Amino acid sequence: NQTFELDNNPHTRLNILTGEWVLVSPHRTKRPWQGKVEDITPDDRPEYDPKCYLCPGNGRADGETNPDYQDSFVFNNDFAALLADTPLGKMNEDDLLVANNQRGVCKVISFSPKHNLTLPEMSVEAITAVVNVWQSEFNSLTENEWIKYIQIFENKGEIMGCSNPHPHGQIWSQSDIPLEIVKETARQKTYYAIHRRSLLADYLKLELKKAERIVFENDHFVVLVPFWAVWPYETMIISKRHINSIKLFTTTEKIALAEAIKITTTKYDNLFETSFPYSAGMHQSPVNNGDYPEWHWHMHFFPPLLRSASVKKFMVGYEMLANPQRDITPEFAANRLREMSTEHYKISKL
Amino acid sequence: NQTFELDNNPHTRLNILTGEWVLVSPHRTKRPWQGKVEDITPDDRPEYDPKCYLCPGNGRADGETNPDYQDSFVFNNDFAALLADTPLGKMNEDDLLVANNQRGVCKVISFSPKHNLTLPEMSVEAITAVVNVWQSEFNSLTENEWIKYIQIFENKGEIMGCSNPHPHGQIWSQSDIPLEIVKETARQKTYYAIHRRSLLADYLKLELKKAERIVFENDHFVVLVPFWAVWPYETMIISKRHINSIKLFTTTEKIALAEAIKITTTKYDNLFETSFPYSAGMHQSPVNNGDYPEWHWHMHFFPPLLRSASVKKFMVGYEMLANPQRDITPEFAANRLREMSTEHYKISKL
Ligand SMILES: O=P(O)(O)O[C@H]1O[C@H](CO)[C@@H](O)[C@H](O)[C@H]1O
Ligand SMILES: O=P(O)(O)O[C@H]1O[C@H](CO)[C@@H](O)[C@H](O)[C@H]1O
Repeated sequence: NQTFELDNNPHTRLNILTGEWVLVSPHRTKRPWQGKVEDITPDDRPEYDPKCYLCPGNGRADGETNPDYQDSFVFNNDFAALLADTPLGKMNEDDLLVANNQRGVCKVISFSPKHNLTLPEMSVEAITAVVNVWQSEFNSLTENEWIKYIQIFENKGEIMGCSNPHPHGQIWSQSDIPLEIVKETARQKTYYAIHRRSLLADYLKLELKKAERIVFENDHFVVLVPFWAVWPYETMIISKRHINSIKLFTTTEKIALAEAIKITTTKYDNLFETSFPYSAGMHQSPVNNGDYPEWHWHMHFFPPLLRSASVKKFMVGYEMLANPQRDITPEFAANRLREMSTEHYKISKL
Repeated sequence: NQTFELDNNPHTRLNILTGEWVLVSPHRTKRPWQGKVEDITPDDRPEYDPKCYLCPGNGRADGETNPDYQDSFVFNNDFAALLADTPLGKMNEDDLLVANNQRGVCKVISFSPKHNLTLPEMSVEAITAVVNVWQSEFNSLTENEWIKYIQIFENKGEIMGCSNPHPHGQIWSQSDIPLEIVKETARQKTYYAIHRRSLLADYLKLELKKAERIVFENDHFVVLVPFWAVWPYETMIISKRHINSIKLFTTTEKIALAEAIKITTTKYDNLFETSFPYSAGMHQSPVNNGDYPEWHWHMHFFPPLLRSASVKKFMVGYEMLANPQRDITPEFAANRLREMSTEHYKISKL
């Protein structure tokens, strides 16, 4: 009679932030891959590209010209999914056809004037400048009473739908609270009501004790592969201090976050010696909507690559219709990332 | 003062089956695309491929040899994500690290002995043979008391992670009820408790009256773009009769379903004159777990293509971290699909 082992037998794990389960199939890594092999985007961009709408001095779709900026640069998305002047309106037919207007502001942030950089290749100081912009944009968007949530994120790499390789991220802010935040609010609130402590603070304490899924730690942040990770090398950055948004970060914390981001993305690049694609973004409490004492700031990294620079995990079929599924265990992924150097492979190779 | 218009202003729509909202940005179609352009898989496969593990007479990874089958052929997945003999087990540390064993059976169904066909290119009779296999597999899997849900699905096309172009689908059955089914059960149950009618039957009645999102209809099934569709050309096939699983389909219904599938997938191929990729699958009630009088059988098609055979919608960044988002309206998509011929473009071009 066998005993059940997490690193050997198919099982489900609970995502404590959403209440949803992920199916883990640890034995399935032996599957041969006859499917799609991604093109590898050549990594030889010039420092300045005259056709890039993010490079300093170039023109944009709305007719504006970018300033000759030095570190980062923010502007309103020329093709925004959300608009501030959307008229109010609602529709409800028999609770079957239900719709509401949605207002919002979408911004783009260029992380650097240099077209050929990415976050892991920038210095901690330069990344700190980006963190400063995130914080000040968060604060100024919050001044609009009608904005209830601000999503700061980055899509990196062609296979993540990123339409321009110039290092940049986005901020979408809106009048309603989006789905993932509704889920994470509910779970954190319930836990806080029972324990009077932050769910993620308790989780972090347990993970630090176990040390099985920790990738990196500094004085203010921990990078780990969550127990319930869905994407092969998914990670989370969690602040050691229980604060509910980037608004409250101190100067020391902002530098520490920049370091955590640099190290996480460097380890990612080193894993398959490629510019590692991902979608990453912060989760924080809604704004202009009362207090959220339960909310604990964190940042998710969702990278699709599974086996190499050209073979990704597809979240299709069973995953879309039934349940997220993963092949390698989170512990295996954490181990691999932990053992990666914190020096970028391009530098090590010089 | 403008008035709010669904076909003009950003808004959210409620998915009545899951309780989740989708963000619709109708104005956003003008966005230029500088991002990833997919390779188009050449569509010139031979009728028989000696290296294909699904072609008749060929060997498979488990050492077996495929029989010389005539219409469809079922076998256990050689690299199954779920296994029937998984030992029972549980883990729970402080409600923070929570895991359960999961048992299951994964099968593969070849839809046709011919390597170069796809569902739209098969006859209604040949598709009916596939529907018959789905029904008999569903019935025989249900005989295992411990199986609680059976997911029948197809991943089609390289960009949907399909690792072999031979026409085939999969069935994953398992000891727990997966996430999407938990959500759809809850919503259908609540509606049924209040109205004593099927949620989808009432929805179907309203949609047939409006006729705005209907793509195709025969005596037993309706194909429509749901009001809350997430993927650009997402559709649903809904049975006119309120039955909770494929088990109860009559011979006439099975032929009508085969016709609805043939027409839906033909219109898809005609849209961009390409073999249209998608993940598709049936949703039906759990099994061996009491009655589910609220459950109403339906089938979802989730296709990623947005603008052409090579430009897809990416569900990344904002969508992964916050909320699903779409650019064209469901009404626009339904219109386009409705006007597509029911004759396959390859035949029209002969
Ligand atoms: O089973 P296949 O076709 O090898 O694999 C495909 O379908 C599975 C079920 O939807 C997914 O888990 C895989 O990511 C995908 O590549
Ligand atoms: O805004 P971009 O970079 O043009 O577009 C990208 O990010 C958006 C936000 O995650 C997504 O909605 C798009 O599908 C994706 O292609």
